[in-house]
Amino acid sequence: MASATAADRAGRPIRVGLDVGGTKIEAVAVSAGGEILGLLRRPTGWGADAVIESIAEAVAALAEETGFALEDVASAGVGIPGLVDAGTVLHAVNLGVESLDLADRASALLGVPFVVENDVKAAALGAAALRGAEESMAYLNLGTGVAAGIVVDGRIWRGTRGFAGEVGHLSVAPGGRLCGCGQRGCIETLCGGGALAKAWGRPGALPVLDILDAADAGDPEAIALRNGLHQGAAAAVRVLVLTTDVDRVIIGGGLTSLGDRLEDGIRAALRDGAGTSAFMRSLRLDERIELLPAGSPAGAFGAALVGASTPTKEIVPHG
Amino acid sequence: MASATAADRAGRPIRVGLDVGGTKIEAVAVSAGGEILGLLRRPTGWGADAVIESIAEAVAALAEETGFALEDVASAGVGIPGLVDAGTVLHAVNLGVESLDLADRASALLGVPFVVENDVKAAALGAAALRGAEESMAYLNLGTGVAAGIVVDGRIWRGTRGFAGEVGHLSVAPGGRLCGCGQRGCIETLCGGGALAKAWGRPGALPVLDILDAADAGDPEAIALRNGLHQGAAAAVRVLVLTTDVDRVIIGGGLTSLGDRLEDGIRAALRDGAGTSAFMRSLRLDERIELLPAGSPAGAFGAALVGASTPTKEIVPHG
Repeated sequence: MASATAADRAGRPIRVGLDVGGTKIEAVAVSAGGEILGLLRRPTGWGADAVIESIAEAVAALAEETGFALEDVASAGVGIPGLVDAGTVLHAVNLGVESLDLADRASALLGVPFVVENDVKAAALGAAALRGAEESMAYLNLGTGVAAGIVVDGRIWRGTRGFAGEVGHLSVAPGGRLCGCGQRGCIETLCGGGALAKAWGRPGALPVLDILDAADAGDPEAIALRNGLHQGAAAAVRVLVLTTDVDRVIIGGGLTSLGDRLEDGIRAALRDGAGTSAFMRSLRLDERIELLPAGSPAGAFGAALVGASTPTKEIVPHG
Repeated sequence: MASATAADRAGRPIRVGLDVGGTKIEAVAVSAGGEILGLLRRPTGWGADAVIESIAEAVAALAEETGFALEDVASAGVGIPGLVDAGTVLHAVNLGVESLDLADRASALLGVPFVVENDVKAAALGAAALRGAEESMAYLNLGTGVAAGIVVDGRIWRGTRGFAGEVGHLSVAPGGRLCGCGQRGCIETLCGGGALAKAWGRPGALPVLDILDAADAGDPEAIALRNGLHQGAAAAVRVLVLTTDVDRVIIGGGLTSLGDRLEDGIRAALRDGAGTSAFMRSLRLDERIELLPAGSPAGAFGAALVGASTPTKEIVPHG
C-alpha cells in the first residue's frame, strides 16, 4: 500500500462510507462533490476479525464495481452499532464485538484514513444531507432498538458524553413491559423491533409485519402491540420536538419497510394526542415527520460524510 | 433624553437586566466585566401600560440605589413570561398582557436599547453564567408552570420556532390529571406550582409548602401529590438528559424555596428510577442536578446578558 500525505489524499476523488449492520454492510462511493457513484451490500462477518475482513472486502468490491482504485480514496467513514470512542467500537453485541480498534485496524489494512461513528448518528447526518439543508432535524431510528440522532446546522449534536438522542429509554408507560435496559415501559419496549418480536413471541421471519397483518385480521393482542408501536414512536417524536424544537423528524431503520402502515399510524397517534390541546395542535407534529424512503443509503452516505468531515491524519509517517 | 451612537454606548459602564414576573420585577445593574453592582425588587403592574411603567420605575430606582445615571447604561435586557417575538411579548397571561411591543416602548421611554427574551431562557443563560462555564446545561424552571432552557457553549438553544425546552407538556402519566394545555398527565400537572395548588384545592398562601407539611404529617392525598412532584421533576430531568445529554440540570423557579425537601426528593426519585437499570445508573442523573441557591438573581442577570449580547442598535437616528 502506497503511503500518501494528507495533501495528496485531499486531491483524491473518492470518499467511501460504510454502514455496518448486524447482517449486512452497505458501502457507498461518494465524489468530492457529494454525488453517490456506487453502492453495494455485502454480508457482515461475526466477531472483531470478521468485521474488519468484511469491511475490507466491501471496500474492494465497491472499488471494482464502481471502477476506482484504493489510491483514489481520500477518506473512509464507518457507521456501526455500539459505543464509539476515538475510533474504537465497544459493546456492539449484534456484531459479536466487545472491543475493536476499528479505525486503526481498517486504516492500516487499506492505507486509507478511517473515521468511525455510531450508526444512528451517521445515518442522521446522511439523512440530513440527502434531504437537503434544514436548520435542524432529528433522525429517529426504529430498528431492533430505538434511538435518535440530532443534526443542527449540518452537524451531529453529540452531547456531553455522546449519548444525546437516547430517547428509546425514556419510560412513557409506568408498569409497562420490561425493557432490555432494566426499566419498564420504555419507548423502545413499544416501538423497538426486538421488543415487539419478543412480546409477540410467535415464530416468523418478520414478526412486526406479522403483528400488523394479525392486527388487520382482528387479533386483539396484535392490535394492542400495533397501537403501542404507533404510540411509542409518537411519544419519541413528541420528546424530540418539545425538547429540542427540531424542524423535522425523519424516521428510519428496519421498521420503515412497513411503509405507510407505520407512517400513517404514527401520524394518527400524533393527531389523536394533540386532539384536546390547542398548544400541541399548534406544533403540527404530524406534519413534521417523514419516513426515509425505502432503500435510502442514509447510513452509508452519512458515514462517508463522517469520514470526510475531519482533517485526514497521517497514518504513515513521512520518509 | 440624550441620543447616543452605538459606539458611544459601548463605552458605558452599566448593563441593566430585569426579570419581570407575575408579582415582582427583579432588576440588576451589571458592570462590563460581569460583576453585579446593584439589585432590587419592585412590584409588577397589571396590563401592558403598567408593565412598561413598572420597568421604567425599576430602572430609575436601580440607578438611584446603585448610583449610576441612565446615560451610563449601555444596554438593557428583559426576561418576561410568554411568547417573545422580535421584542414583542404575546400571551403573558400572568401579567395581563395580550400583546406588548416591549423592546420598542421601553427603548423609547428610557433612551436605552432593550432586548426582550422569554424569562426561562433568560434565567437559563444567567444560571449558566453564574455557575461558571460548562459545556452544556439545562435550566429546569419549577414555578407556576414548568419549562426548561437549554444552554450550549454559553448560548441559549432556541430551536426552530423558539420553544425548545417545553418539556412541561410531555405526558408521562397516561390518564393523569388534566393539564392547562388540554392534555392529561403532563409533567407540569405533576410538578407545576399552579397544577399542584389546584389539585390540593385547600386555602393557603403557599399550597406546595402546605402539601409537603401535610405529607410529613401522613395525609395520603398530600403524600401522593408530593410523590408526583418528585416523580414529575425527575421525569423532566430524564427527558432533558437523554435527549440532549447536557452535563448538568440546574433547577430554579419558585418551588426551589422548598430547598432540600425538593432536591432530596427529586434525587431519590432519580435513584429509584435507575435502580433496575445499569444503563440509567451509568448516567448518574442524581449527581447531575442541582438547585439554584435561594435568592439567586439568575433571571435578572441572564436578562442583562441578553441585553448585552446583541449589537446595540441605533434607536435615535444620527443628526
